[in-house]
Amino acid sequence: MACIDGESQLGHIDLIKQLNAGVVYRLIDKHGPISRIDLSRLAQLAPASITKIVREMVDAQLLQEFESTEPGSRGRPAVGLKIETKTWHFLSLHISQGQLTLGLRDLSSQCIVEDIVTFLPSDSPSFLNDLFAAIDAFFVRHHHKIERLTAITMTVPGIVDAARGIIQQITGYSVHNLPIVKILANRIGVAVFVQQDISAWVLAETLLGAANNCSDVIQLTLDTHVQVGIITGGKLLHAGSRTLPEIGHFHVQTSGEACACGRQGCLETTTNLTHILALAQRRLAGEQEKPMTIKALCTLALNGEPQAQAILQEVAEHIGRALALLVNIFNPDKILIGSPLSQAGAVFYPQILNIIQAQTLPRYSQHLIIESTQFNLPSTIAGAGLIKDALYNGSLLIKLLQG
Amino acid sequence: MACIDGESQLGHIDLIKQLNAGVVYRLIDKHGPISRIDLSRLAQLAPASITKIVREMVDAQLLQEFESTEPGSRGRPAVGLKIETKTWHFLSLHISQGQLTLGLRDLSSQCIVEDIVTFLPSDSPSFLNDLFAAIDAFFVRHHHKIERLTAITMTVPGIVDAARGIIQQITGYSVHNLPIVKILANRIGVAVFVQQDISAWVLAETLLGAANNCSDVIQLTLDTHVQVGIITGGKLLHAGSRTLPEIGHFHVQTSGEACACGRQGCLETTTNLTHILALAQRRLAGEQEKPMTIKALCTLALNGEPQAQAILQEVAEHIGRALALLVNIFNPDKILIGSPLSQAGAVFYPQILNIIQAQTLPRYSQHLIIESTQFNLPSTIAGAGLIKDALYNGSLLIKLLQG
Repeated sequence: MACIDGESQLGHIDLIKQLNAGVVYRLIDKHGPISRIDLSRLAQLAPASITKIVREMVDAQLLQEFESTEPGSRGRPAVGLKIETKTWHFLSLHISQGQLTLGLRDLSSQCIVEDIVTFLPSDSPSFLNDLFAAIDAFFVRHHHKIERLTAITMTVPGIVDAARGIIQQITGYSVHNLPIVKILANRIGVAVFVQQDISAWVLAETLLGAANNCSDVIQLTLDTHVQVGIITGGKLLHAGSRTLPEIGHFHVQTSGEACACGRQGCLETTTNLTHILALAQRRLAGEQEKPMTIKALCTLALNGEPQAQAILQEVAEHIGRALALLVNIFNPDKILIGSPLSQAGAVFYPQILNIIQAQTLPRYSQHLIIESTQFNLPSTIAGAGLIKDALYNGSLLIKLLQG
Repeated sequence: MACIDGESQLGHIDLIKQLNAGVVYRLIDKHGPISRIDLSRLAQLAPASITKIVREMVDAQLLQEFESTEPGSRGRPAVGLKIETKTWHFLSLHISQGQLTLGLRDLSSQCIVEDIVTFLPSDSPSFLNDLFAAIDAFFVRHHHKIERLTAITMTVPGIVDAARGIIQQITGYSVHNLPIVKILANRIGVAVFVQQDISAWVLAETLLGAANNCSDVIQLTLDTHVQVGIITGGKLLHAGSRTLPEIGHFHVQTSGEACACGRQGCLETTTNLTHILALAQRRLAGEQEKPMTIKALCTLALNGEPQAQAILQEVAEHIGRALALLVNIFNPDKILIGSPLSQAGAVFYPQILNIIQAQTLPRYSQHLIIESTQFNLPSTIAGAGLIKDALYNGSLLIKLLQG
C-alpha cells in the first residue's frame, strides 16, 4: 500500500540504455546464435543502435561472436551472437527453517556447486555474523571454482521489501527490517538482489522452468504452508512492494482446526501436508503396515484406491475453489503446483482442473494447463530467477557493463 | 494471455520525453501553482530539463504561467505554473443497453454538456453509421461550445482490446472485432482511446474520484451484474490485454438460480439487484403497500428493520467472501462499492467489512476502507479517467505537444 508516486515512472537516458540492453540480451539468449541483422529486426532497433549495444556487451565479455559457414555457401561467413555465461558467476543464498543453502551458479543458471549448512535461528547481530561466516567459508571451500562474481541473491520465507532491499521478517528467525542489500553490497562489493522465496521461485519457473515463455502464471505451493506466486502480464505481481498474494487464509469451511491466524477453516489448515497425512493415516490404516507417507498416499491414489483418491479430491475441492477465483481474475496460461502431492499429479491435477472449470468462465479455463513446477525449494534456483529477471530488465546488465 | 514479448519494454528516446512530460504534468496538476524550482525538486529532474519541458508545454498552451506576490514580500514576484484545461475539450462516448451518452468535457474533466440519445442494438455497418450520425448531430447541436478538440474516448460494456484499439464485443450489440480507434481517428483526426466501461470507471475513481491518490483499489459494481475493476501498484490490472477480472461467477452456493454461464450458485445470480428485490418483495411484503424498491429496502435497513438488514447481510456474506480473497491477493487501500445498495452504506459497508476482516490477514484488512464510488454509470466520466491516465503517462501529452 502506498500513494501514487509520480516519480516512479520517471525516465532518464540511463533507463533507455538499460531497457534496450535488456531487450537485446533477452533476444540473444532466446534466439542465439543470431546475426545483428536478425537482432535489429526482432528488437525493432536501428542497426546502428544494435551495433553500439552489441559492441559494448562483446567488449564486456557478456556476448560471444563466432563465425559460421553454412555447408556449401560461399562468400563471407555469417557472424552469430550468443550470450557468454560460463565466465560469470553469482552466489545464490536461500534460507529456510534452520538451513542455509549456498549455490554458485553461472549466468546460464547452471549450478557449479551447492552446499547446505545448518543455520539456526538467532537474533539480528548473530544472524549477520553467522551469515558472513557461512559465505566466507563457502568462498574458501570453493575459491578454485569461482569465476568473476557478478552478484549475490538472497531468498527467504517471510516479508521482503525487494525494491528497498530490506528483509522485514524471516519466518522462524527473529530478524526485523534488515537492510540486507546494502549490508552485503558494502561487504562484498557486487550487486545484491533479495526477494521472498515463493515470489523468486515463480520468477524462476517463468524464466527458466515449467512456465517458460508464459506471461500469466499462478503457482500454488502446498506443503506445510499453502502459498501462491503470481505472474501477470509478464511481471511478478507486487514485485515492487511488500505485499504478498496470500491464499492460505481463504475460508473454506466454517469449522475445523484452529489456524495460526486465530480463525478456523482456513485453506492452509485443511490442506497442509500434516493434515492430509493425518487423514490418510486414519482412513487408510488397514492398507499398509508402515506409517503412512505422502508418497504412499500418492501411490495408492495412482493405483485407484478409492479412499486415497477421495482424500485428494477433498484437497482439490478446497484449493480448486480458491484457484477458480484467481483464474477468473488473472486468466493464466498455466497453473503450476509445487507440492509432494504432484507425485499423484495424474489423478490430482484433473481433479483440480474439474473444480476450476466448473467455477470459471470457459474462455478463461478451457485451455488452462495444470502441471508440476520444474524446481523445488530449498534450492538456489529461486535466486537464479532473480538474476535472469535482472538481466532481462537490464538492471544487472548495466552494472556489469559499467564494470 | 500472450507470450512474453521482448519488444514490449523497448525504450526509445521518445519514451523518455513522454514519461517525463507525464510526470511533470501530473505534479503541476497536483501541486500547481508551483514554481519551476519546486517542480525540479519534486520531479527529481535537472532545472534545465524542467525549463525545456515547461517551455514546450507553455508554448502549446497546456500550461499557464502567472506571477504572484506574497502580501508583504519584496523583490521579484514568484512565477507559478498551473495546468491550462478550459480551452482543451474532448468528446467522451459511453454506450450502454440501448443508449449512447455523449459528453463534452475539458481537460480538468469538467462536463460542458452531456446528452443521452437512444442507440438501439444493430449490426456492425449500421452501428457505425448510427454512431457517426449521433456524433455529427452532437457537434452540430453544440458547435458554439466546443474549444479545441483533443481526443475522443469510448467506453462500453463488453470485451475491449484497449492496447490494439479494438472493441471485440459490446454486451447487447452484435458488434465484433471493431477497430474503433482507427475508424474514429481516421474520421475525426484526433487521438482516440477505448476501454471496457468498468475498467475506465475504476481509473476515473482513482484519478478523479473516491480513491484519488490511492495506488491499490478494488471496485465492486453491483446492479444487474456484479463486476470488479482493480488498480494494483497504481496501474489498471490487465490494462494492456483483453482479460477482465471476473467476479460474477465466483461460486457461492451449490444450488440456486441458473446463471447465464450455465451453472448454479454464481455470485451474480445470488446478489444481483433483481434477485435482491425479489427477496425483499417476499420477505417484507407486509411492510409497505407500494411495490418494493431498492430505495425502500435501504431505508428499512437504515431504520433498523431486521428482515431488511438480514437481506443485506446475506448479500454482504456472498460478496464479502469473494472480496476477502481479493484483499488477500491485492492488499488494497480502499474498496469502492458502486451500487444502489450504497444508499444503505451505513449498514451494508460494516457488514461487508466484518466478513472481510474475518477472512483476511489483519495486516491487509485492519486499515481497509470501504466506501461508495463517487461516480455512477452511465456517465461520460469513465472516459475522463482514460484522458487523465493518458495525460499522466504522457501518451496524450506528446500528441498535443506535436500539435
